[in-house]
Amino acid sequence: MATPLIQMALDSLDFDATIALAEEVAPHVDIFEIGTPCIKHNGIKLVEELRSRFPDQLLLVDLKTMDAGEYEATPFYAAGADICTVLGVSGAATCAGVIKASNANGSETQIDLINVADKEACAREMVEAGAQIMGIHTGLDAQAAGDTPFNDLNLIASLDLGVRISVAGGINQSTVQDVVRAGADIIVVGAAIYGAPSPAESAREIRELVDAA
Amino acid sequence: MATPLIQMALDSLDFDATIALAEEVAPHVDIFEIGTPCIKHNGIKLVEELRSRFPDQLLLVDLKTMDAGEYEATPFYAAGADICTVLGVSGAATCAGVIKASNANGSETQIDLINVADKEACAREMVEAGAQIMGIHTGLDAQAAGDTPFNDLNLIASLDLGVRISVAGGINQSTVQDVVRAGADIIVVGAAIYGAPSPAESAREIRELVDAA
Repeated sequence: MATPLIQMALDSLDFDATIALAEEVAPHVDIFEIGTPCIKHNGIKLVEELRSRFPDQLLLVDLKTMDAGEYEATPFYAAGADICTVLGVSGAATCAGVIKASNANGSETQIDLINVADKEACAREMVEAGAQIMGIHTGLDAQAAGDTPFNDLNLIASLDLGVRISVAGGINQSTVQDVVRAGADIIVVGAAIYGAPSPAESAREIRELVDAA
Repeated sequence: MATPLIQMALDSLDFDATIALAEEVAPHVDIFEIGTPCIKHNGIKLVEELRSRFPDQLLLVDLKTMDAGEYEATPFYAAGADICTVLGVSGAATCAGVIKASNANGSETQIDLINVADKEACAREMVEAGAQIMGIHTGLDAQAAGDTPFNDLNLIASLDLGVRISVAGGINQSTVQDVVRAGADIIVVGAAIYGAPSPAESAREIRELVDAA
């Protein structure tokens, strides 16, 4: 199995702080994720700016699209997104629209399984529809209620769907190796890096833990 | 019953075109809605610009929040949104976060019932939680599949929940009076105005039809 990719969640609302954090952790992470509140706050020009500054990082825009899939996602792929997310709860037509937009651009679609009732059925349907990444995602509000992504990760990994699995939800130095061993291909880290005294040092630690797992 | 409000959905992605359309239809509509693709594309500065140009219109930002409710919504209320939307499918904690943010600002929260499996239960729970508006919403992708908002509108109106009901989903001159009579308090019109040869004329027609219903 390839070494899992590390995805840095850029959750700040501030444009300049987002760029500065990206600069700081770039040597240690593979994917920059523009978080949902961040994209709604800053708009597509943040995608363009990160794309031009970081040609070597993959760029994920966490659109969490709920409707008008092709219309909403198309400009973000055109602006340089390698991956956009669409909510599994949006339904097959909206997901198909985002997949169509990504295919037109040679890019990828991630299905965010957050709050999907039947995650196995949704994942199977979306793999069939052409999605390349399944996102296991315990949201911030669910984390605050004590949830973790492990049960859903174990379920989706057991299906052996032949697509990558991305995992997000409060992952830190003490849990990241468990996430790797459970079958994650993409590991999303947010607060454990940006909330650390030294984000660069924290990102380097996570990188070493992932590579050693 | 008060005359229903007309909400103009600003669905363009272009900043200047959005402002121009708003200028054109302002005399005939009560609420400007910044659509979800539009806010993701343009960011919060579009809220600030519309707020400063249109002090007399209500301003709805269709955030369709799915997670991190309070964090995501707070700056949009601060920027001048009178109403932000949150997805019913996000769950109680996220909706409560948006409601908290709106209460802190003396503003309002609309629950978007799109794709909620049990709309009655969700609506009852969210009224209890303090939401002021229930959004009946047949999305663009569902409209393309032939769906209309009438069944859901009839259901929610029959509950007599004591909150306003907003209805969106392909409403035009031939259906708007049916929507009023079915109990809508806020009527969302998009393509029937912005897709018309004269958006201002179309908005004026819709206004007359609503006022006469």
